[in-house]
Amino acid sequence: MNQYDLIIIGSGPAGLSAAIYATRAGLNGIVLEKAGVSGGQVLTTYEVDNYPALPGINGFDLGMKMREHADKLGAKFQDASVTGLKIAENPDSPDAYHTVVCDGEEYQAKGVIIATGAHHALLGAPGESQFQGMGVSYCATCDGAFFRKRDVAVVGGGDVALEDAIFLARVCNKVYLIHRRNEFRANKALQEALKTYENIEYVLDSTVEELKGTQSLETIVVKNKNSGELREIQAAGIFIAVGIVPDSGIAEGVVEMNEKGYIIAGEDGRTNVKRIYAAGDVRSKQLRQVVTAVADGANAVTSFQEDNL
Amino acid sequence: MNQYDLIIIGSGPAGLSAAIYATRAGLNGIVLEKAGVSGGQVLTTYEVDNYPALPGINGFDLGMKMREHADKLGAKFQDASVTGLKIAENPDSPDAYHTVVCDGEEYQAKGVIIATGAHHALLGAPGESQFQGMGVSYCATCDGAFFRKRDVAVVGGGDVALEDAIFLARVCNKVYLIHRRNEFRANKALQEALKTYENIEYVLDSTVEELKGTQSLETIVVKNKNSGELREIQAAGIFIAVGIVPDSGIAEGVVEMNEKGYIIAGEDGRTNVKRIYAAGDVRSKQLRQVVTAVADGANAVTSFQEDNL
Repeated sequence: MNQYDLIIIGSGPAGLSAAIYATRAGLNGIVLEKAGVSGGQVLTTYEVDNYPALPGINGFDLGMKMREHADKLGAKFQDASVTGLKIAENPDSPDAYHTVVCDGEEYQAKGVIIATGAHHALLGAPGESQFQGMGVSYCATCDGAFFRKRDVAVVGGGDVALEDAIFLARVCNKVYLIHRRNEFRANKALQEALKTYENIEYVLDSTVEELKGTQSLETIVVKNKNSGELREIQAAGIFIAVGIVPDSGIAEGVVEMNEKGYIIAGEDGRTNVKRIYAAGDVRSKQLRQVVTAVADGANAVTSFQEDNL
Repeated sequence: MNQYDLIIIGSGPAGLSAAIYATRAGLNGIVLEKAGVSGGQVLTTYEVDNYPALPGINGFDLGMKMREHADKLGAKFQDASVTGLKIAENPDSPDAYHTVVCDGEEYQAKGVIIATGAHHALLGAPGESQFQGMGVSYCATCDGAFFRKRDVAVVGGGDVALEDAIFLARVCNKVYLIHRRNEFRANKALQEALKTYENIEYVLDSTVEELKGTQSLETIVVKNKNSGELREIQAAGIFIAVGIVPDSGIAEGVVEMNEKGYIIAGEDGRTNVKRIYAAGDVRSKQLRQVVTAVADGANAVTSFQEDNL
């Protein structure tokens, strides 16, 4: 049986930060990562410009640097496809071990940090994957500043879509807000705020049919679902805000989750089960960014150290 | 009158992260910094080894890199000695402006992020300031390596003091652990760990009366509070771990603070006053680290964007 002080599931910025803190604290820990590669969503981010001290770093490089940092300190990593999580029979006992079930193997630890992340829902339009990082983005906070004074579009009708549109309206020349319905489901304050921006054009009852361009995105083809008419919108960027999906499957039925599938945990990362923590994008929180992910990793390890005295 | 969307008071990692996020969000913001130099406590840290992706970076370099990052994005900085903070008369009005009072000038903004940090408490013993950097230190992780195989002392009885003593016991010849009480308030695990180091000598019920030396520290004069006896300890270094003091003076009587003087705010940075936020070490929280400071800066800006719709 593989027994550890602490198992960290996931090796994005939250998991890697947890690995750095756990290793420096002298804990016997291991990071279980699925893809055989560390970095999480950061890896596929073209440029990260809001991780302080590393302006404009390529996402892949940032992921690699974080992994190298953990390696340098001696953190242990294991390729593993985690399929389940079993709570210790008596989790309040100081000698209780939780079990992480993987394909063909089980790992046990006094503490488990779930840092499995989340992913953005895809639009499913032709060209979407081709232009990812070349005009197609899933995060206005992350990438909006790259489109200063240019024309961009946002797709979606929820809070995030309207927040993105407002964020971009301040930075960009013009924002097309494309939504498949004729009204937004975002909260009213956001809808009111939206009206104060004259450079936002609503493209309602419309779906994105295709994304076109040469090197990078140039044209968005939208279809009005009432008239069936096709329209070509010239834009350098499209921000797809049709939902985020937390990768919390292994926590289902184990720890409390909210209605969107995020694991419910405060800043300290503690879930409703003793010595099981959530860190990074999979946690219920306000802002999903690299800076908040690395904070989560450190906080979860600190909470574990306190809970394990 | 200097009017802004957002004023950030302080330019440590929390303030610089806030500046990065605010600038990228197209907010009209300004950072007010007192020392004419950015970086906060990080600047005087010899080595930072837990900011993911930058293993073992010199603290001064990390501070400079964060400042350069903000500069590159076009963040505005102003030297200013902030003396007070006046809440807008009607803070719930969307057009309300808070006022930041400086020596000779006033700044107004819809939102204010207090990121003024914290500092290490002084011992107050004669010789303490004279030998600062010449034997007197407030950070074992930062300066311990300078005293390899020499005799040093740690003053304090909390978690930090015991962590410092353990760190130094691995590096130095001998560690005197000086504490004014006869028991430590540090957590039990640390107390247990302490016992495994044979080169740590406890000097309990004792206070430091004077620090003596010629060029650098040579002798620590301690007084036993029961017997009144004075003892001279020969040591090349003394690590003072008697507490951290939040730099929250300007917030006194303005926003709610806890009994230790930290500004009460959750992960989102919101204080009890609308559109006034706390970020970084000055905020009530579990873990004061660079990673949590940069998360705070981003969260406070995000909260302001929501509150300012």
